[in-house]
Amino acid sequence: MSKERTSPSYTIPANQSERSFHFGSIVSSIIIRETMPGSPEEFFGLLRNPAITGGIKNAIAVCDENTAPLARNLGIPWLILPAGEKNKNWTSVETILRFAKTGGLGRDGLFIGIGGGVVCDLTAFAASIYMRGAVLALIPTTLVCMADAALGGKTGFDLEEIKNLAGTFYPAGTILIAAETLKTLPGREWKSGMAELIKTAILDQDRTFTLALLDEFSNPALLQNQPAAILPLVKKTLLIKGRIVEEDPWDTKKTRALLNLGHTFGHALESTLGLGTISHGEAVAWGIARSCELGLALGITPPDRAETIFQILKAWGYDLALPEAAGEFMDKGTAGKFRAALFSDKKKNAGKLRFVVPAAFGAVLVEENERVTQFLESFI
Amino acid sequence: MSKERTSPSYTIPANQSERSFHFGSIVSSIIIRETMPGSPEEFFGLLRNPAITGGIKNAIAVCDENTAPLARNLGIPWLILPAGEKNKNWTSVETILRFAKTGGLGRDGLFIGIGGGVVCDLTAFAASIYMRGAVLALIPTTLVCMADAALGGKTGFDLEEIKNLAGTFYPAGTILIAAETLKTLPGREWKSGMAELIKTAILDQDRTFTLALLDEFSNPALLQNQPAAILPLVKKTLLIKGRIVEEDPWDTKKTRALLNLGHTFGHALESTLGLGTISHGEAVAWGIARSCELGLALGITPPDRAETIFQILKAWGYDLALPEAAGEFMDKGTAGKFRAALFSDKKKNAGKLRFVVPAAFGAVLVEENERVTQFLESFI
Repeated sequence: MSKERTSPSYTIPANQSERSFHFGSIVSSIIIRETMPGSPEEFFGLLRNPAITGGIKNAIAVCDENTAPLARNLGIPWLILPAGEKNKNWTSVETILRFAKTGGLGRDGLFIGIGGGVVCDLTAFAASIYMRGAVLALIPTTLVCMADAALGGKTGFDLEEIKNLAGTFYPAGTILIAAETLKTLPGREWKSGMAELIKTAILDQDRTFTLALLDEFSNPALLQNQPAAILPLVKKTLLIKGRIVEEDPWDTKKTRALLNLGHTFGHALESTLGLGTISHGEAVAWGIARSCELGLALGITPPDRAETIFQILKAWGYDLALPEAAGEFMDKGTAGKFRAALFSDKKKNAGKLRFVVPAAFGAVLVEENERVTQFLESFI
Repeated sequence: MSKERTSPSYTIPANQSERSFHFGSIVSSIIIRETMPGSPEEFFGLLRNPAITGGIKNAIAVCDENTAPLARNLGIPWLILPAGEKNKNWTSVETILRFAKTGGLGRDGLFIGIGGGVVCDLTAFAASIYMRGAVLALIPTTLVCMADAALGGKTGFDLEEIKNLAGTFYPAGTILIAAETLKTLPGREWKSGMAELIKTAILDQDRTFTLALLDEFSNPALLQNQPAAILPLVKKTLLIKGRIVEEDPWDTKKTRALLNLGHTFGHALESTLGLGTISHGEAVAWGIARSCELGLALGITPPDRAETIFQILKAWGYDLALPEAAGEFMDKGTAGKFRAALFSDKKKNAGKLRFVVPAAFGAVLVEENERVTQFLESFI
């Protein structure tokens, strides 16, 4: 009897896989399934987090217009935030905090974010500061959020036109990935997510994942944005990312910085064009291409490796020169703005920019030096 | 030579003592001195935190009208916030974040908060979310902040008339306590700080500190608010609090909850009267008296122990019935408001209120139960 009580008889359903990561003293459990739970009971049954003591009565869901139907199905109070990067601001955070307070949540209350990176980052940030930290579960419904944003604890919102200028580290206790939520994802969003998948594939030390991505060109289901076909790649991506974050959960060593591959250039492009003008993934793919060029200039990226990466990016439809929306970006005299955005990157260390460039295996971190400056000058 | 380089020859001045606490993986160093450093160089020499790589150029000071002269002396950009609890809000946090951004701080930038609980809590919160966590030093200039708020990592601001509804755990790397900053502290603020000192004295397991406080009644310098006389008591308080926080840095066990002695009742009183109507210390002292009564009713607080505590509170001039400003509080039909504030306490656990009551030695945590409810009903 007592044995039963300490280890409840829980069986992982056939169409579901699970994996837990340890970020410092925090455990993040990822549940990957094809379908969303059929009832609130099934959903809360999945959240076997001992910290969630208050149960359904002590939970709120946060969503946007696109994910409202999913939130409604959970049978708890739900809040609809306006969609889009331009609403990733304090006003949205405060709306969530007041909603939680009105709902009577204590600090053992559960915040559930259902949506893409904007909803998940905002909900996670709100949970992280509500009474100095409430319980958090995330249900990412975009590929970029499934493959990247939801795992690893980075939360935040934009301020002063800088992405995530304000934020915290606050890993979700549970992340529920249900492939079926991708069914209605627009093609552009799908493409945006692929950039994070490709980024993580490049970080894979044994290169099999990068090569696997090349293979996937022959997978018509994947190229037609079929949710079930993407699941194995999402799993692999999360495994690589999770291991990196486990080594460096609070981003204080140099390990986690590898995940910024393509992001130093990409974030600066997003800031220059105005947040939300191009998708995060388009910016990251553009940034990966720039990182390859930097790596080639520094003699770190082998030419054949750069070629493989360019091939993958092109196959997925990315414009390696400049994303369409950026257009005549450099001609418009915005180079100064781009330079300013680049140098205000929050990942600077002791005042120096850091770039991640692909190496023969995986990628390496490069600090700003004379040769990097030379490259930047030739490029900007 | 190489030995010298790894252990710099740093001597603690005669009038200075230091102590480091370990909160999880974070080290908080407290420097206690009689005087403020005489120059910016001396000040930055004190901050031998290896994380502060950018030096003076990469630091900002945050103060209020009262502490502006101290901030000005540091030789770095300083920001003056409007003083008072009513400004402990998001607007102030955002002002700090924008000031840091404008000043070009990276996430290795240093935020220095100089002032009482409001300035220190706001600066610490802003530092904790700036680029997901910048470097933090605090210079508390009020007794309540020296003896309590600055140590232990609790940051935050008020929302929905709830004190620190939003906040984080973010211990300062360095806390500089200079007794001379208390010279101009108004008597009421002095009295407010004594409540936190008395609270911590009650938590002292061997009771010597409580008895020492009784002895201090014969210390005219202390009763005349002489800064130098209070230093030994501040040190003792910080040692007791620091040890408690080391055992439970993120407030997840039951240890740290002991520091809430007097606060469950006190916070509810503050909320009922409107934040800032009475001082935090007056509210806490009133709360300690209520906790003694609850402890007596539950048979946990020995009558002679309650008597000693009442004696100390009275000697320091606290009105044990109700603080003056509260006046005819219960007559005004505000009992319902008080009850609502009490039951929205963020320290609730699984929906149940928790109270700390003095025991024969130290204090113990009591969960809401039938007898507690009985006491609350007789009292509200």
